[in-house]
Amino acid sequence: MAYSYWKSGKKADRSVFDLYFRKNPFHGEFTVFAGLEECLKFIQNFSFSESDVNYLKTVLPANVEEEFFEYLRTLSTDDVEIYAIDEGEIVFPKVPLIMVEGPLPVIQLIETPLLNLVNYASLVATNAMRFRNAVKPGTTLLEFGLRRAQGPDGGLSASRYCYMGGFDGTSNSLAGKMFGIPVRGTHAHAFVTSYYSLDEVTNKKLKKKNSEEEVDFVELCLQWQQKLTSVIDFLADQVIPGELAAFISYAQAFPDNLLSLIDTYDVFRSGLPNFCTVAMALFDCGYKAVGIRLDSGDLAYQSIHVRKVFKKIASHFSVPWFSDLIIVASNDINEDTIHSLNQQGHEINSFGIGTHLVTCQKQPALGCVFKLVEVNNKARIKLSEDVEKVTIPGRKIGYRLYGSDGHALVDLLNQQHETPPEIGKRTLCRHPFQESKRAYVNPASMKVLHKIYYKHGKIQQRLPTLSDLRERAMKSLIPIREDHKRALNPTPYKVSVSSNLYKFIHDLWLESAPIGELS
Amino acid sequence: MAYSYWKSGKKADRSVFDLYFRKNPFHGEFTVFAGLEECLKFIQNFSFSESDVNYLKTVLPANVEEEFFEYLRTLSTDDVEIYAIDEGEIVFPKVPLIMVEGPLPVIQLIETPLLNLVNYASLVATNAMRFRNAVKPGTTLLEFGLRRAQGPDGGLSASRYCYMGGFDGTSNSLAGKMFGIPVRGTHAHAFVTSYYSLDEVTNKKLKKKNSEEEVDFVELCLQWQQKLTSVIDFLADQVIPGELAAFISYAQAFPDNLLSLIDTYDVFRSGLPNFCTVAMALFDCGYKAVGIRLDSGDLAYQSIHVRKVFKKIASHFSVPWFSDLIIVASNDINEDTIHSLNQQGHEINSFGIGTHLVTCQKQPALGCVFKLVEVNNKARIKLSEDVEKVTIPGRKIGYRLYGSDGHALVDLLNQQHETPPEIGKRTLCRHPFQESKRAYVNPASMKVLHKIYYKHGKIQQRLPTLSDLRERAMKSLIPIREDHKRALNPTPYKVSVSSNLYKFIHDLWLESAPIGELS
Repeated sequence: MAYSYWKSGKKADRSVFDLYFRKNPFHGEFTVFAGLEECLKFIQNFSFSESDVNYLKTVLPANVEEEFFEYLRTLSTDDVEIYAIDEGEIVFPKVPLIMVEGPLPVIQLIETPLLNLVNYASLVATNAMRFRNAVKPGTTLLEFGLRRAQGPDGGLSASRYCYMGGFDGTSNSLAGKMFGIPVRGTHAHAFVTSYYSLDEVTNKKLKKKNSEEEVDFVELCLQWQQKLTSVIDFLADQVIPGELAAFISYAQAFPDNLLSLIDTYDVFRSGLPNFCTVAMALFDCGYKAVGIRLDSGDLAYQSIHVRKVFKKIASHFSVPWFSDLIIVASNDINEDTIHSLNQQGHEINSFGIGTHLVTCQKQPALGCVFKLVEVNNKARIKLSEDVEKVTIPGRKIGYRLYGSDGHALVDLLNQQHETPPEIGKRTLCRHPFQESKRAYVNPASMKVLHKIYYKHGKIQQRLPTLSDLRERAMKSLIPIREDHKRALNPTPYKVSVSSNLYKFIHDLWLESAPIGELS
Repeated sequence: MAYSYWKSGKKADRSVFDLYFRKNPFHGEFTVFAGLEECLKFIQNFSFSESDVNYLKTVLPANVEEEFFEYLRTLSTDDVEIYAIDEGEIVFPKVPLIMVEGPLPVIQLIETPLLNLVNYASLVATNAMRFRNAVKPGTTLLEFGLRRAQGPDGGLSASRYCYMGGFDGTSNSLAGKMFGIPVRGTHAHAFVTSYYSLDEVTNKKLKKKNSEEEVDFVELCLQWQQKLTSVIDFLADQVIPGELAAFISYAQAFPDNLLSLIDTYDVFRSGLPNFCTVAMALFDCGYKAVGIRLDSGDLAYQSIHVRKVFKKIASHFSVPWFSDLIIVASNDINEDTIHSLNQQGHEINSFGIGTHLVTCQKQPALGCVFKLVEVNNKARIKLSEDVEKVTIPGRKIGYRLYGSDGHALVDLLNQQHETPPEIGKRTLCRHPFQESKRAYVNPASMKVLHKIYYKHGKIQQRLPTLSDLRERAMKSLIPIREDHKRALNPTPYKVSVSSNLYKFIHDLWLESAPIGELS
């Protein structure tokens, strides 16, 4: 395409493209916009290296003129302008996330990279936020998805944008190192099965907290095992000794951070008693355990029963903190699992989520599109038999209008040079395609959605840190009404156009559509 | 985990892990093994940089001993051994794809990267091969997925492994440059809508093929438009002039490669007539057009009708090659779409597939696992209430046994030092978990599945090129019986264990499982 534009003298044609999506993902009615920073950095660095040009020479037809390759060599994005919504903002269908303006061939060359950088980022950030909305307040959400992502860098994108969407940490250390995301993790089943007896704990000592005194920690654990049998009802000869050895070793390595995976053999006969044994022994040495992880079985039932056991110990030994130990659940959890757990009742404080989060199993692509809306100041419309696929032509600017109770009422698209809506003044908001759908809106406050982000080869706005973006995403969701956010059958949020833009769309539509002939 | 192993004196414990999956993806009964080369290169280069170690110091608890970081600094994979199935081979559940042997902490540190590199690679290669099996022989399959992949590198993985699984090309130029995959593409709708009139074709000339003679190509096209109206039944005043201008420009740039997207406005009233017009004018100048692309609507009906029009022109103007022009279809195609098109009948020669291919919409994760099967020469078994999740303990070696008609009969896992099965000699093959399922197999030929791939810090086998791997994958599928490969309700392929291994599994199982108590 670029060569063809170049050859037909269109290399300087000034074009405007909108990047947007047509439908919110996951049967929801909101989306988190993510990926803008990566887009801007890509655009700023976009150029063809000598080796790129040489490669293209080998794959393009032999008749392609040498001057075109010269053009590629010197191509830059200095003439490109980017208007965009702030990254992390809640966004809706049809409102351009990014509006890209510049020479036609340049913009078409960056089309696919921009789609690539926005699509997955926004999809997975939205997925993360849906998990955040699904869990009870105060729940810790951990992203455990690296093993299921599209390669190592797919995994990094997943960690980055899940954090932006409201997760609290990742098990991907490189993502922690690169993006400052808190890293979290527990141990695996293999850690437990790699031990088979207490004899393997060769160094039996543990130093007491803030003291030089060392105790025989294995001995102390065995004493606690005896004390606990009657309190929480298990048989000391039924617990798996390898599992106890594994928990003891872990506690010796991380006395302040014991979090044990308790389902390797049998949660109630072995895992839970072994954990409580080691946790109480640790407490004798001045350390508090963190909690347990469940990775199989009936998570609702198990978590409730585990909590009961924790409370029993708390009360019997007067260790109130034991009631509040953390219960982490993992095992192939998706959004529906969480809703179902909430309905059943459970005692889970933290979820580790992998596959369904990073692959976005429910809908693995957002379906962003990149549509031409103007060339050389002439608006362009793309018609389709499916009305929802008709594009909104020309340069635009978006506003979010809020009611007096602080809730977002509607997003409004104006033509670029129209008078903006005014606070306290009635504005007619129209459905872009359906004539009869319109409403007067009297905004109590409003926000301009689109800002200039790139011009003269430079990024024009300060780019927030990842944790600022995460905060922005969370804040941006607050004014969105509950009925738009709920998981089941949410109400669509209204996206409208001004009267002027409505007329402009429909005049151009009639002008462009061939009149059918029936015979 | 690594610190805990290190601290409890297990840093040199010799462990063996199996990497395998439990279920073929996409309701199918075969999988293409991919990602081995990336795993081997990762293992060979695995080490902690000074900055990695410094980062880990900031996130690990303060009590972690300095000597552990020294250990990380000098950690290498020289003691690691990898046995694996050849990349590109067809594989089945429970048979280890990779068997990793080495010091316990080292192996656990590389667990997630290996899963990451195998999971998506094998999943998407398998998906690609399913598309390959679904289409008619001779169909060209093009991967158009970059915009929907998990970031730029997710897109590269997709292109690489789709090609391995049997695709013919990609629209991702960087994948072409890096892996030598043929790059293919057409133009977008925006290319068509960016033109609005024939006046935009400023240079109207085209040089005839193998000649210096230049013709007024626009004029020639308009002549052909007149000639064609009666033959293929359209109205010259109903075709969209911008579309014609776009096709003409493309033809001038790529006279040997005209492939037009014909559904921007109206396939039969505008797109198809405009393409035929330009294609016939090109032929006057000595060039043959390539074909058209359909990206919306009823692909079966449209492709059949387009083919009819091509044949009409072929016969009317005595240009037989026109009958065989290529019809490319794109528009959100998945495997089921192709089966449905086949059932309806269609004339499509080539598919461009994006979203459903690279995101593996039907099942976006393969679910490979990495299980400990031995520590310090002691076999390990992981029990589970779900029998399919019980691991097969100890070091193993796999064979594929073939019948006299060349078909693969069964995969057989032996203990590592057992006598291998012999050609022409009855071998008892047992289901690993179900006592009554067993069969004598008399192999006419056989193949050893597992080879040493990494030892003493070095890769031990020649690594084939990507196109060799693609060929291997296609060849490896041939001896698999049709009923294992069919899309609907395929028969599971048998994976079995030797008598010795069967006994070994079940002895260890009984030894490890606690005896329940009913009260």
